[in-house]
Amino acid sequence: MNTLRVGVIGSGYWGPNLIRNFAELPNAEVVAVADLNPERLNNLQARYPDLVLTADYRSLFALDLAAVVVATPPHTHYAITRDCLLHGLHVLVEKPLALNSLESQELIEIARVNGLVLMVGHTFEYNNAVLELRRLIDGGEIGDVYYIDAVRVNLGLFQPKLNAMWDLAPHDISILLYLIGHDVTSVSATGSACVFDSIHDIVYMNLTFGSGVTAHIRVSWLDPNKTRRITVVGSKKMVVYDDVETSEKIKIYDKGVERPPYTETFDDFQCSYRSGNVHIPQINFTEPLRQECQHFVDCIINRQVPRSNGVVGLNVVKILEAADWSLHNGSVQQMVQLLPVPEVGAALLQQPTQQAA
Amino acid sequence: MNTLRVGVIGSGYWGPNLIRNFAELPNAEVVAVADLNPERLNNLQARYPDLVLTADYRSLFALDLAAVVVATPPHTHYAITRDCLLHGLHVLVEKPLALNSLESQELIEIARVNGLVLMVGHTFEYNNAVLELRRLIDGGEIGDVYYIDAVRVNLGLFQPKLNAMWDLAPHDISILLYLIGHDVTSVSATGSACVFDSIHDIVYMNLTFGSGVTAHIRVSWLDPNKTRRITVVGSKKMVVYDDVETSEKIKIYDKGVERPPYTETFDDFQCSYRSGNVHIPQINFTEPLRQECQHFVDCIINRQVPRSNGVVGLNVVKILEAADWSLHNGSVQQMVQLLPVPEVGAALLQQPTQQAA
Amino acid sequence: MNTLRVGVIGSGYWGPNLIRNFAELPNAEVVAVADLNPERLNNLQARYPDLVLTADYRSLFALDLAAVVVATPPHTHYAITRDCLLHGLHVLVEKPLALNSLESQELIEIARVNGLVLMVGHTFEYNNAVLELRRLIDGGEIGDVYYIDAVRVNLGLFQPKLNAMWDLAPHDISILLYLIGHDVTSVSATGSACVFDSIHDIVYMNLTFGSGVTAHIRVSWLDPNKTRRITVVGSKKMVVYDDVETSEKIKIYDKGVERPPYTETFDDFQCSYRSGNVHIPQINFTEPLRQECQHFVDCIINRQVPRSNGVVGLNVVKILEAADWSLHNGSVQQMVQLLPVPEVGAALLQQPTQQAA
Amino acid sequence: MNTLRVGVIGSGYWGPNLIRNFAELPNAEVVAVADLNPERLNNLQARYPDLVLTADYRSLFALDLAAVVVATPPHTHYAITRDCLLHGLHVLVEKPLALNSLESQELIEIARVNGLVLMVGHTFEYNNAVLELRRLIDGGEIGDVYYIDAVRVNLGLFQPKLNAMWDLAPHDISILLYLIGHDVTSVSATGSACVFDSIHDIVYMNLTFGSGVTAHIRVSWLDPNKTRRITVVGSKKMVVYDDVETSEKIKIYDKGVERPPYTETFDDFQCSYRSGNVHIPQINFTEPLRQECQHFVDCIINRQVPRSNGVVGLNVVKILEAADWSLHNGSVQQMVQLLPVPEVGAALLQQPTQQAA
Repeated sequence: MNTLRVGVIGSGYWGPNLIRNFAELPNAEVVAVADLNPERLNNLQARYPDLVLTADYRSLFALDLAAVVVATPPHTHYAITRDCLLHGLHVLVEKPLALNSLESQELIEIARVNGLVLMVGHTFEYNNAVLELRRLIDGGEIGDVYYIDAVRVNLGLFQPKLNAMWDLAPHDISILLYLIGHDVTSVSATGSACVFDSIHDIVYMNLTFGSGVTAHIRVSWLDPNKTRRITVVGSKKMVVYDDVETSEKIKIYDKGVERPPYTETFDDFQCSYRSGNVHIPQINFTEPLRQECQHFVDCIINRQVPRSNGVVGLNVVKILEAADWSLHNGSVQQMVQLLPVPEVGAALLQQPTQQAA
Repeated sequence: MNTLRVGVIGSGYWGPNLIRNFAELPNAEVVAVADLNPERLNNLQARYPDLVLTADYRSLFALDLAAVVVATPPHTHYAITRDCLLHGLHVLVEKPLALNSLESQELIEIARVNGLVLMVGHTFEYNNAVLELRRLIDGGEIGDVYYIDAVRVNLGLFQPKLNAMWDLAPHDISILLYLIGHDVTSVSATGSACVFDSIHDIVYMNLTFGSGVTAHIRVSWLDPNKTRRITVVGSKKMVVYDDVETSEKIKIYDKGVERPPYTETFDDFQCSYRSGNVHIPQINFTEPLRQECQHFVDCIINRQVPRSNGVVGLNVVKILEAADWSLHNGSVQQMVQLLPVPEVGAALLQQPTQQAA
Repeated sequence: MNTLRVGVIGSGYWGPNLIRNFAELPNAEVVAVADLNPERLNNLQARYPDLVLTADYRSLFALDLAAVVVATPPHTHYAITRDCLLHGLHVLVEKPLALNSLESQELIEIARVNGLVLMVGHTFEYNNAVLELRRLIDGGEIGDVYYIDAVRVNLGLFQPKLNAMWDLAPHDISILLYLIGHDVTSVSATGSACVFDSIHDIVYMNLTFGSGVTAHIRVSWLDPNKTRRITVVGSKKMVVYDDVETSEKIKIYDKGVERPPYTETFDDFQCSYRSGNVHIPQINFTEPLRQECQHFVDCIINRQVPRSNGVVGLNVVKILEAADWSLHNGSVQQMVQLLPVPEVGAALLQQPTQQAA
Repeated sequence: MNTLRVGVIGSGYWGPNLIRNFAELPNAEVVAVADLNPERLNNLQARYPDLVLTADYRSLFALDLAAVVVATPPHTHYAITRDCLLHGLHVLVEKPLALNSLESQELIEIARVNGLVLMVGHTFEYNNAVLELRRLIDGGEIGDVYYIDAVRVNLGLFQPKLNAMWDLAPHDISILLYLIGHDVTSVSATGSACVFDSIHDIVYMNLTFGSGVTAHIRVSWLDPNKTRRITVVGSKKMVVYDDVETSEKIKIYDKGVERPPYTETFDDFQCSYRSGNVHIPQINFTEPLRQECQHFVDCIINRQVPRSNGVVGLNVVKILEAADWSLHNGSVQQMVQLLPVPEVGAALLQQPTQQAA
């Protein structure tokens, strides 16, 4: 089997992790890295002496690559991803896919027309704890999901051109869509810009799903305690996924409220509370990014639709876009209409443009 | 010194604590208790054989009492408190003061005209950890307060005629007003009614203060982990008050973000993060309810305006009222206008009605 | 059914809990309390106006009581318990039964000859978490028990005539005997006397059981963090019982080491480690002291041998006695020989003295 | 300045960390690595293509090295270190220095005669949290140290030729000597061999210092919860160093017991307990191994005695040796006599053998 030749564009905070993971995959190799910062390239040279290093990502188009990874700042995702797709390269782009839904849709269309894999780096969709959470929901163990509360807060890192929501919430939104489905119908958001006037460093979001499930997301760059926790409350059980915990990431509580079957008047109503065992399933640890990179390579080789495909990325952007509007307009609820997600694992066909169809 | 003769109306969940505390005060005695439930009265008889026990609170008016405590279900607060004030009794009423601001205002007016102490059982205003928090803010140690995040969640206890916000949030709102001031200008709320169609068991509230401080409150009857935590983020320090902790209730983090003094463009902006020592002050434990009951008695004896006086109670109700409207109207922000709070400790004068003035 | 008339001797730290529990039992009543401290008696009078109160416990012998509870300082246990038994009263005495095994044996003998219930206040033998721990061991879920590590440390409370071992370790020893059996064969102890020259405030004990199980107990009055934890390591599972935890008292870890079946040489040996699910069983909370008091009353009424009977108390004292010797003699291991425990629930027969037999 | 040429012998669990750290030092370079396992050498080749790799450590003697690091299994430390010293190389050897004190002394003597740096990899002596602990003790903030309790437990990793004490306790012993001084006068130990008959997987050690301080060490390969905690109890304050904590590694408790100044009899003695603020100093994180490697290189370049020099290593071995004897002889206390430690930073002189002197 030939190894897949991969290039990486952007080698800042997250890039080195991508390079390391692709370098260690059996059926891929990192051939070249582009970054505007010469110091970063020097550091890479010391560790990977055979890499082609360049300041201009366009040099990568001459290297007979099969795919690129775009790990540049978010405001450049659209232009670079578009360029790479138009040069016939499969693309794994970091979250968010783009900064608005129109550009996201254009990227999906270009990939579709050219039969290319377009995948977004929603790394939590490849995290075994999230997979376990979905198994618990799909298997009915939790009962009907009532609501989900997600918290992702920490001190820093402030970014110059994005607020905390665009920086942190793509993780939570992609987890929620993966767990509950792509049927969010409305979104609202509120927050504060404490340190810089123009950049919200604290944001609270509300999502309503077509199924009636509601979700609340709290993200912040200004909290003394690092917290990454998702609470799923169902009619049968309650589950807490705490990503900061090293070994007990998921706790399943046999807790709930029994509604009284019938009450003459409200006055004599009496709920019964169930508080039973707690179960902590063993989650086998595999680096989520490793599973993500492997999936990208597999989808290219087998010509299949990936899990966090372009439409998934677009739906996350649609929610962010609506929430941003709400954030700047008195927290008013916004309707959203997500796109149906193509079947994961389906054959990736090269399709004529829709106009031509 | 004569002891103050006190009657207690309502002896359900919280009533016995009030009875015990007043019974142990040096300058007060509990003379009588009224409750509709005969079983509860029987239990009290065993423990306090000298108490006058009655099903009809109006029997208390014949007992030459100085004051009553109203610890009945919230929807009865207004009528019973009104009746007691009109019979010339000083009143300590459990939170919330009433279920709307008009009724609250009427109670304040009756108390004012008759020169009576009207105090609301905001027990956290008498909690040493909250007092320490205010000292930290007022002393400037925290710097400018950026925002406050409050969480009060647990499994249960559902109430038949109130949602989780009216049940739980009075605590957080009274703490916030005590810490930041009575200058909330707008409120919004969102939530879910999971177990019963008509009763919100999960509510998220947002408050904006005139000073620019924002606050977010999360309350829930449907959470597997009991949490009672308030995070205050300031320009100099961050403080977490965790009421579930037994010994380390307040943690002061020397953490923050330094804004760069000047940046040519956003591209080269670089925040610096400070992460220093943590300090956990010793909080002397005195039962907050004991301090509250003592304060009520002292204010009656000295004829002084109490801390959690009627106007404080009204302002809490105004915020709940506005939030409830938002909760049922698409989370739209509501303007609120709070009343100026009379000076705590000022002489309590019997005043003619305003019409007469 | 007649209620059992009970007297309580000693009303210091623990006495009020005993009084409250006996007062609330359906088939017992507290008739009288003896204490040398008049202030304590005054406090009781206020709460229980019908109690007979006295400074001289001998006054209780005229009150037609069926049983007494001895909750005086440990060095008085022997004399007071002996006196009460000789006056024909059933006795529940706080731990330790006495300060040496000879006196303990004498008490057992007096009770036996007179057909009286002699029970020691080993409250953890009536704690649902300890009962669950025993079910896990007896049911085979843990596999062969390898060893047990027990920690009981805190700041204070220093006692004038006892060291920390005599004060704290009776709890752990009674738990260990209840879990593993009364077959301890040797004991050693070491420790430090930090604050007072003559009183060990830190003690470490080692117990070896006939079955090969070893146990280690750490007790201290000088630790900044209150800890009460017992770790049971078995060949199949590991269990931690943390009594300081409010809700997750017992955690069962599916963890262990698989020994390689056969290895040619030690060099190529390779253990495999199993790290699986964690399970937290729901422990129904009933106050252990309530269950202990009820058991005492039941054993008197039904004339049955109680769980923490005199011989159990004696065996705990034998271990403490041997450990104390080791503590003062270079930590040398001491052999111990425990007595066989009479069957719990067996009929309590009035037996002639052994000499007469 | 020339870079120091370093070779690494042994590339198992810890070796790659040593290679990485020396590779990143400005004034050193890793020239060659020896390991018996070809697979490990292959992995290194991929990452460090310029390394000389060999199965025979003796090949390193031809490479003009200045120093070697010995990170092989403990039973080989003596022979390999001896060989390297005799070939004129400075040596950093992993803990323990050797498996008995005679061999340790021989290594010290060879290094001394040849003017070579002999340093032991006691990595915690280069850990900023331990340095902070020593500052707190030396600065008098803790008062007189009463005792120290150290716990280092986990599940695994069993080693074929060593028990858990030889594997884990060198860390705690080196910390204790660093904090309190090299004046341990007696040692005892007890433990259990649960999984293999001949290998203690659980060991409890007691150390007595000449100053009267006592210390207790608990090490285990058989515990469900990873714990690495050292509690220092002093007459003024208590400190807990928890190495498993990510951010709050050291907690200083203003807690203690005030002895009554004078008491007529023991009966009326009454201690007072102080429970004040808690302080958590910020510990700047620098990888301890980095600081250790840098120190080794600096001592070679400046010809100075290193902190964890041969005598420090010997004293740790002496304690382990005595404890092992106690462990196999009924926990009997053993006297130990440690050697005076040469002054850290003193000039490293080439000295004739003692016989010649």
